[in-house]
Amino acid sequence: MIDLYTWPTPNGRKVSIALEEFGLEYTAHPVHIGKDEQFAPEFLAISPNNKIPAIVDRSTGRSVMESGAILVYLADAHEQFRGDDWYVTLEWLMLQMGGVGPMLGQAHHFLKFNPGAAPYAEERYRNEARRLYRVLDTRLQDREYLAGSYSIADMATWPWISRYEWQEVDFDEYPDLKRWYLEIADRSAVQRGYDVPMHVNDIPRPD
Amino acid sequence: MIDLYTWPTPNGRKVSIALEEFGLEYTAHPVHIGKDEQFAPEFLAISPNNKIPAIVDRSTGRSVMESGAILVYLADAHEQFRGDDWYVTLEWLMLQMGGVGPMLGQAHHFLKFNPGAAPYAEERYRNEARRLYRVLDTRLQDREYLAGSYSIADMATWPWISRYEWQEVDFDEYPDLKRWYLEIADRSAVQRGYDVPMHVNDIPRPD
Repeated sequence: MIDLYTWPTPNGRKVSIALEEFGLEYTAHPVHIGKDEQFAPEFLAISPNNKIPAIVDRSTGRSVMESGAILVYLADAHEQFRGDDWYVTLEWLMLQMGGVGPMLGQAHHFLKFNPGAAPYAEERYRNEARRLYRVLDTRLQDREYLAGSYSIADMATWPWISRYEWQEVDFDEYPDLKRWYLEIADRSAVQRGYDVPMHVNDIPRPD
Repeated sequence: MIDLYTWPTPNGRKVSIALEEFGLEYTAHPVHIGKDEQFAPEFLAISPNNKIPAIVDRSTGRSVMESGAILVYLADAHEQFRGDDWYVTLEWLMLQMGGVGPMLGQAHHFLKFNPGAAPYAEERYRNEARRLYRVLDTRLQDREYLAGSYSIADMATWPWISRYEWQEVDFDEYPDLKRWYLEIADRSAVQRGYDVPMHVNDIPRPD
C-alpha cells in the first residue's frame, strides 16, 4: 500500500497515472496547494521542497519526493515501464524533468495565470513551448513512444502536454505528438489516474 | 574513453566535474552555444534537444544526453557517488533537475542577461532563488552533503550555486549551504572539471 500526497496538477498526475499503470494499491491524500497545505510540517518532513507529489511506501516505510524520483523508484521496484532501453528512458524522463515540466510551468504562470504581467516573459515561454513540442514531435515521428515502448518517460511527459490549451500552441502543427497524446489519453489507467485526488475536468482532446 | 560535448555552463560543468570525480578518461569537445553549434546536425543526432552536455561512451558506442541521465549512467556503471541511499540521491538529483537548474537558469536570464526586460519576472526568480537556497541550506544543516555522503546530487547542484553572484542572493544567509559550497570548491576534481572545456573564470568564493 502506498500513500500518495498529491493535487491535480501535471506533476501530481504523473504519479497517480503511474500508480494506476503499475496496478498498485494506494490511498490518495489531497494536499490543497491553494490553501498552502504543502507548508504543513508533517508534509515538509516527507517533501522538504514543499512540493507535491510525494509518496510513502508503507511496506518499507520509505518516503520519496520529486515525481521523477518516484517514477524511477516504481520502475525499479516493479521492473516495468522501462522502455526499450533504460538509459534512453532516463534521457527523456530527465528532459521532461529539466525542460518540459519547468518551462511549460512557466508558460502556465505567465500566459494563463498572469497575462499582462510580463509580455517579454510571455513571448519567451510561448516560444519555448513551441520548441519543446517540436523536439517531442520529431522524436515521435519514427517511434510509438518516447523510449520505444510505453514507459515512465511518457507518463511524466503526457500530463504536461494535456495542458496544451494553456500553452498557446497549435497542436495540429505537431501531428506525431498529437497521435501520441490521444493514444495515451485512451488508456484506462491514464483516465483513472487523471482524476486523482478528485475530478476537476475531463481530459482535453484536440479536434 | 568518453567523448564529452560541452560548454562552460552549470549543466556542462556537472558532467566535466563528474568525469573528473569518477577518474575517467575523456576528450572534451567544445560546443560553442554562442555560435549556435548545438544546432549542427551531428550534434542533434546525439542530443535531440539541442542542449549540452552530451557524452558518447566509446567502449559501448552509447550516447547519453541530459546531464541528469549522464550522472545516473556514470553512477550505475562505476557504482560510486551514490550517496548513503540511492533513492535519496535521486530525490535531490531530481530536485536539482526540476527546480534548482531551471529556476536559477531563469534567474540568470532575467537578472543577469536581460535586466529591465520584465521586472515582474526578475522579482519572481529572485524570490525563487532565495526559496531554493533556503531548502538546500535547511537540508545541509544536519548532514555534510545532500544525500549524506558526497554524491552525483552534489555534483549536479554545486555548479548552479557557483553562479550565486548572478542570482542576487546574500550567501551569508545560508551558512550551511556556504560551508558545503566551499568544501566542494576545494576538491581537486571539481577544480579541474570547472575549467572544461576551457578556463573562463576562477571559481567564485564568497567572503
